[in-house]
Amino acid sequence: MSHSNRHVPAIVIGRLPLYLRALTQLAAEGRRVTSSQELSEKLGFSSAQIRKDLSYFGEFGKQGTGYEIEYLERALREILQVHHVWEMALVGGGDLGRALANYNGFEARGFRIAAIFDADPQKIGTMLGAWKIQPMQELRETVREKKIHLAIIAVPATAAQQVAAELVEGGIRAILNYAPTTLSVPPKVKVFHIDPVAGLQSMTYYL
Amino acid sequence: MSHSNRHVPAIVIGRLPLYLRALTQLAAEGRRVTSSQELSEKLGFSSAQIRKDLSYFGEFGKQGTGYEIEYLERALREILQVHHVWEMALVGGGDLGRALANYNGFEARGFRIAAIFDADPQKIGTMLGAWKIQPMQELRETVREKKIHLAIIAVPATAAQQVAAELVEGGIRAILNYAPTTLSVPPKVKVFHIDPVAGLQSMTYYL
Repeated sequence: MSHSNRHVPAIVIGRLPLYLRALTQLAAEGRRVTSSQELSEKLGFSSAQIRKDLSYFGEFGKQGTGYEIEYLERALREILQVHHVWEMALVGGGDLGRALANYNGFEARGFRIAAIFDADPQKIGTMLGAWKIQPMQELRETVREKKIHLAIIAVPATAAQQVAAELVEGGIRAILNYAPTTLSVPPKVKVFHIDPVAGLQSMTYYL
Repeated sequence: MSHSNRHVPAIVIGRLPLYLRALTQLAAEGRRVTSSQELSEKLGFSSAQIRKDLSYFGEFGKQGTGYEIEYLERALREILQVHHVWEMALVGGGDLGRALANYNGFEARGFRIAAIFDADPQKIGTMLGAWKIQPMQELRETVREKKIHLAIIAVPATAAQQVAAELVEGGIRAILNYAPTTLSVPPKVKVFHIDPVAGLQSMTYYL
C-alpha cells in the first residue's frame, strides 16, 4: 500500500467508504469480480473517476478483467483503517441517541459504541440497550481511560459546542456531529457533519 | 440565473447546501460580506474550488470586495429551490422518526414534515409531535393528494425497499434514506443516503 507516501485529496477519501459499501454489498450477493463501470452505475460517479480514485492506492484492476471484490474490499478496509473495530463514545441518550444505540450497522463496518453519556439526571444510570448512561462529568475520564478516539454528538445544537470541547479535552480525534450547528475544534480533530437538510437541498435542485 | 442552460456536475450541486449553510451562519452573526477564502476556511474546500462552483451560476463576487452574503444566500436558495417550503412524508415513527419529527432545523431551511406513517399497529393513530401517525395503507393516497414530492425513510433496512416502492408509486421524487441499505428506484427518483458509517470511515483514514 503506497498511500502513506502520497497526499490524497479529502474528496477522494470521502468516496472510499462508498466504494467499500458497494463492494461489501456485491460480496454479500455472492459476486467475485466487478468493474469501474458497474461501480459507476451503482454510485453515480464516472468510471474514470473511480479508476483515478483507486489508482492513488495502487493497481487494483486489470484491463479487461476488472476488480477482484474481496481483495479490493480488504485493501479499502486497511486504507480506511477499519480492518479493526473502533470504539466510540455516544453523547446524547435522547431519541436520536437511542436510534444510534440500537443501530446494528456499526460493528460489521468497523465501529462499536463503548459508552453513552447524557446530562439529564433522569437518564443517567438508566440502561440504553447494553449500556448504562453515564453522567457528562465522567466523559473526559472514561474516554481517556478507555482510549476512545471517536465520538458521536447527538445532543441539541445549544449543547453541542460544549460537548465537543469536553470530547477534545478527553482526547477524541474525530467527531460525527448530528447537531445542526458547526463545531469549532482544533485543526487536528476531524468533524463529519450529518446534515439531513443539506442532503434534501442537494435533491430539490433537480425537482 | 443561467443555471437552467448549463449542465452542472452533481458534485457541485452537493456542495451548494454547504455554502448556503455557511452563509446563513455568517448572516446570523451579523456579517454582510464574505470571501471565498473565508468560506474555504469554514468548509475545507479550496477557495479556487468555491469560486469555480459559484461561477456556474453567475457572477457573485467582485475582485477585492468578496461576496455579498445576503445576495448570495438568496441566490443559492433560488438555485436549490428552497426559497419556498417543501412538504415531506416521514416513514417510520420509531426512535429515529421521533428524533426527525422533533428536529427543529427543517423549516428555516426549506422543509416541513406533512405526514408520518408507520406499519406498527401500536403506533398507528398515536401522536408524534403535531402529527397523528398514519397506517402505511394510506401512504400512496395521502402523498398523492397532498402533492408531497419528498420523503424520509426511517424504517429498518429490511422494510426500506418496499417503502421506497410505495413512495415512488405515490409520486415521490426524492428520498432521504436513513436505512442502511441501497434503494433501487427509477432513475428519475433522487435518493440521498444518510450513512453514519461512511462519515466515520472518512475520518478514520486520518487517525
